[in-house]
Amino acid sequence: MNPVIDAIHKRRSIRDFTSEPVDSHLLMDIIEAGTWAPSGLNNQPWRFAIVTNPVTKALFEPLTRYKKVIRCAQALIPVFVDKNAMYHEVKDHQAIGACIQNMLLAAHSMGLGAVWLGEILKNAAKVREVLGLSGNLELMAVVAIGHPASRDQHSSRKPLDEVIVYQG
Amino acid sequence: MNPVIDAIHKRRSIRDFTSEPVDSHLLMDIIEAGTWAPSGLNNQPWRFAIVTNPVTKALFEPLTRYKKVIRCAQALIPVFVDKNAMYHEVKDHQAIGACIQNMLLAAHSMGLGAVWLGEILKNAAKVREVLGLSGNLELMAVVAIGHPASRDQHSSRKPLDEVIVYQG
Repeated sequence: MNPVIDAIHKRRSIRDFTSEPVDSHLLMDIIEAGTWAPSGLNNQPWRFAIVTNPVTKALFEPLTRYKKVIRCAQALIPVFVDKNAMYHEVKDHQAIGACIQNMLLAAHSMGLGAVWLGEILKNAAKVREVLGLSGNLELMAVVAIGHPASRDQHSSRKPLDEVIVYQG
Repeated sequence: MNPVIDAIHKRRSIRDFTSEPVDSHLLMDIIEAGTWAPSGLNNQPWRFAIVTNPVTKALFEPLTRYKKVIRCAQALIPVFVDKNAMYHEVKDHQAIGACIQNMLLAAHSMGLGAVWLGEILKNAAKVREVLGLSGNLELMAVVAIGHPASRDQHSSRKPLDEVIVYQG
């Protein structure tokens, strides 16, 4: 199996991390991988915050039911869409998804663990407030990153014949 | 550079293909790669059509300004969201984006070329009609695939300091 397909299949949502910090260069590489996603008209509507300071990171804990993940993650990368850069809501949200998937695959390929946190969107405005960001930045997800404490997670997918609706 | 990051950086939108057909097993592998994207609550809202028959494929030509791409592509994979499987519009559209990105990376890793066509969404209803699909399937994009006629395409991204809005 080629290493790209292998990473796509073996990547898992990692929610438990060791206390080892994540090198800041790796965080930059993960964000850069995100930016190489395609976007409609190449508008690149994604914006990123990097949160590694434990005091700032702790402010995220009350904003989600996944506070345990926030607590043990060594870095959070909140991903925003810049409303001023948007041109088509559905396509821009898809581009953000492509960007985040690149980030998750990049983290996996470096031996890091990561998880895409979406439930925190219910507190999108508070995340913006914590980081002191302007109103044009709308939270799209928080990617939590660290060195994985375990890798034994299983996952499953529907068989292909359930998701292929036409062939011809 | 590791092969996953390398693929993420080097993947390009390929719009010109040779007349060599694409093995149907590779199309299945590309779709399977798509399904290994994460989705909220693992709801897997994506659905796929596989169009390789030239007569059916030709029916897509009048539906987009990219008819030259449709004409030389050896396979089209229209990607849909199943409205009956959705739980959160923004997150489901993001999941579809992650799925499509997996497909593009998988195609690239196999030496194939692919391009994400979004402009055809203006004729989403007609695409559904051409394929005889039910109203719960909403077109999200068409991925056009083939053996690349050339690979010399350049692309660019904003520098990281323009997209990182917070660090601390």
